[in-house]
Amino acid sequence: MAIKRHEVGPRLSQAVVHGNTVYLAGVVADGADTKEQTTKVLAKIDSLLTACGTNKSKLLSTTIYVTDMRNFADMNAVWDAWVDPKNTPARATVEAGLANTKYLVEIMCTAAVD
Amino acid sequence: MAIKRHEVGPRLSQAVVHGNTVYLAGVVADGADTKEQTTKVLAKIDSLLTACGTNKSKLLSTTIYVTDMRNFADMNAVWDAWVDPKNTPARATVEAGLANTKYLVEIMCTAAVD
Amino acid sequence: MAIKRHEVGPRLSQAVVHGNTVYLAGVVADGADTKEQTTKVLAKIDSLLTACGTNKSKLLSTTIYVTDMRNFADMNAVWDAWVDPKNTPARATVEAGLANTKYLVEIMCTAAVD
Repeated sequence: MAIKRHEVGPRLSQAVVHGNTVYLAGVVADGADTKEQTTKVLAKIDSLLTACGTNKSKLLSTTIYVTDMRNFADMNAVWDAWVDPKNTPARATVEAGLANTKYLVEIMCTAAVD
Repeated sequence: MAIKRHEVGPRLSQAVVHGNTVYLAGVVADGADTKEQTTKVLAKIDSLLTACGTNKSKLLSTTIYVTDMRNFADMNAVWDAWVDPKNTPARATVEAGLANTKYLVEIMCTAAVD
Repeated sequence: MAIKRHEVGPRLSQAVVHGNTVYLAGVVADGADTKEQTTKVLAKIDSLLTACGTNKSKLLSTTIYVTDMRNFADMNAVWDAWVDPKNTPARATVEAGLANTKYLVEIMCTAAVD
């Protein structure tokens, strides 16, 4: 099974396709609040999935990290409007610190690339 | 490779089968303490695995989130009694906040469905 | 698809190979500081990957937990020197508590075993 990496940096790649599965990096984005950051994170995930020849209806699993669970509803409002409601992934959301204090949300996905 | 989703909600699915692999959502459960919650979480995982045509002896990987590492031993006591000791998954356990303060433990698994 | 487990304990296995994918446990190591622990963790990951017939150039996805994001740069210094720069995995790093307060970093990887 071939491995194809996208947006390869010396520390990490933004997406790694192995066989029929793609692993995305944890995605963060600038923004004034959780809703703006989540909107930009999900747009970046759309872009990565497209580059890998797939889309959000093929999401398999997602882990969402928020720095403050008080922002859970704001993150979910954007998520719920974005995700394909008939093809939702397995998901966990936990509260954890992120690499830079300006970030409020980080989302890491796995998707099918069939 | 087909994707089959179980207990599909508009936000997340409880289980997503892709080829020979199933991804479960992070599972939480009500309960008075970590032991009771972990017992119920693992029963729910058993039920999801059964629905996907597999069982705990096929677990591949597990991430466990506890809200307070002082409950690590209680979680492990229930886990150790439940898991198939000859077929244990790769596992990580970390301390992180969960979506609702009533929850003390959340468990997210991947399993084979061969 | 066969499942092959390595370093199987009654609670968890250090590595689980399923088809062409290997799931490693979260790896921790003793050490006086983040750099020493990360060095030892990555050496252990090398060893596990070798036992599974693969190596770090086949990494697919990695989640790194640090107990204090102030140690992010130290972890990255060791990571950057270790990882294959043309074959980097998808990666997320978050701040979370670990099972024992002596540990500063825990790394969980998935790799191809083609």
